[in-house]
Amino acid sequence: MKYILSKRPFRKEFLDRIAQIAPEYQFETDPANVDWQQVQITVGWQKDWEEQLLTPNISLAWVQSLSAGVDTLPLAQFRKQGIILSNASGIHTRSITEHVLACLFMDVRGFPKAIANQQKHLWSGVDMRYGYLSEQKILIVGTGEIGQELAKSLAALNITTTGINTTGHKAAGFSRTAPITELPTEAAEADYIVNILPLTPETHHLYNQHFFANVKPSAAFLNVGRGASVDTQALTDALQQDYLRQAYLDVVEEEPLAPDHPLWQMENCLITPHISGMTPHFEKAFMEIFLENLEGFVGDGKLWRNQVTLKAGY
Amino acid sequence: MKYILSKRPFRKEFLDRIAQIAPEYQFETDPANVDWQQVQITVGWQKDWEEQLLTPNISLAWVQSLSAGVDTLPLAQFRKQGIILSNASGIHTRSITEHVLACLFMDVRGFPKAIANQQKHLWSGVDMRYGYLSEQKILIVGTGEIGQELAKSLAALNITTTGINTTGHKAAGFSRTAPITELPTEAAEADYIVNILPLTPETHHLYNQHFFANVKPSAAFLNVGRGASVDTQALTDALQQDYLRQAYLDVVEEEPLAPDHPLWQMENCLITPHISGMTPHFEKAFMEIFLENLEGFVGDGKLWRNQVTLKAGY
Repeated sequence: MKYILSKRPFRKEFLDRIAQIAPEYQFETDPANVDWQQVQITVGWQKDWEEQLLTPNISLAWVQSLSAGVDTLPLAQFRKQGIILSNASGIHTRSITEHVLACLFMDVRGFPKAIANQQKHLWSGVDMRYGYLSEQKILIVGTGEIGQELAKSLAALNITTTGINTTGHKAAGFSRTAPITELPTEAAEADYIVNILPLTPETHHLYNQHFFANVKPSAAFLNVGRGASVDTQALTDALQQDYLRQAYLDVVEEEPLAPDHPLWQMENCLITPHISGMTPHFEKAFMEIFLENLEGFVGDGKLWRNQVTLKAGY
Repeated sequence: MKYILSKRPFRKEFLDRIAQIAPEYQFETDPANVDWQQVQITVGWQKDWEEQLLTPNISLAWVQSLSAGVDTLPLAQFRKQGIILSNASGIHTRSITEHVLACLFMDVRGFPKAIANQQKHLWSGVDMRYGYLSEQKILIVGTGEIGQELAKSLAALNITTTGINTTGHKAAGFSRTAPITELPTEAAEADYIVNILPLTPETHHLYNQHFFANVKPSAAFLNVGRGASVDTQALTDALQQDYLRQAYLDVVEEEPLAPDHPLWQMENCLITPHISGMTPHFEKAFMEIFLENLEGFVGDGKLWRNQVTLKAGY
């Protein structure tokens, strides 16, 4: 018997489809029920599986991540053991897009100040921002599926965006794109900077003291990518010293953010607890990817969708 | 000398245009400088002008309101004296649309809970709402310029809306419309109810105890119209007793909202201080209306744009 070990349960209709496609596999969510030697596939990954699964002479061949980001997984070890990895990229696209739209519209219509005033029971229009989003320069760092969906949604509202990617190649929805080498120049002109990059050695602390020193003091920074792309101390300093006007953080370097972290009580930082990717109909959307890949895997051992380049990390 | 008495100053470029179009008029912002008998036009209205201007044998003929809503003006007295009135409808359209988009996206992505949790320094995804706006039933009460712009913006994002107006006549941007007589039926099905109606005797306390008793307990109510369309006590009760999940109020019956009003500290009520209409380039947009009307007025005494039907009140 070969096993699929899953970090989470799925509805019966999906288990039935798995059994149809791969009848020689048993689907299990409880590690106590599997023979570790015979686990060929995992759905998701857990740190406490590593001792059993990251050893020689094991049959693990494919890991299907439950999330788009795979930065927390032991990629180097997967490479060494020849384990292939696929991610859940695409599932969170619309959710993250709507989360970012919320932040952008809130910001351009002065909500952070109103929220702070509500805590003081203060009805006041003093120092309230108001503008049109279409008149703001929006820089989206990352032009993958999420960046494109966001750019397309904004374009549908006649709002133009600039995208940043590795080489500056064109991407759907964006008015223009520029290579990552031009990030400092582009960021210096932007009213909004939205980070959607995956976390890799190249993007770790990409947004550091030097970065924030060069943005417009009136700019806002949004992070829906990965927390560790931002040097939290540098961001905190920038907000406190008015190098940066406002931040919207859905991810931070250390999650959960410590209760005594100064960001919590800063009026110019709105914190959401890594919720931008929370997605209705998750099982259905995830299973569309997994079942296609399962067909490929049991056929010729190849995945059809979302295979991660282990060396690049996304 | 005839006078234009204005509640607020305007830039020289606009004063020059006024002088070109109506050379026989003097533009004044200080009532001390005018002969009340010779004030033919006012830009905006002030309560303390009424003693001078709402009397017989005065030459006041036209009031150009600075806002879209004219419910605070003495409409009956204007009718009696044969004073014509125009409003600033259209200026605030895009601003209010973006304000409502902020509320809708914030809500569907769980921001109110995250904002409340931030005050407690609590990083938690528990009980966090998440969904797609396209899967929500959005009811927009009022299908005038603002309602149509909002419906069109949502339609551009593949989000359908239902509009409510007097007779149920079609309106641009809306997937469907229904007459105001069907408001209770339509509201009972809605996930979001957005009020954009002008305040008239018919819309005063339209949203009362009976209304809120019939909406879905999971619904959210947004008011960017006029505060007095809502019975504030009934709304407060509905939010406290969970007949209604969430409110977004940009206007309230008594502005400013009293510091000790219970709405301030309710997690399920987000209050903004009548800012949704705050508009960049206000002078330019307003003057486009006023100068066109001024040409009409000095020509044949007729206004070209935005004349209010005094009996209807909008």
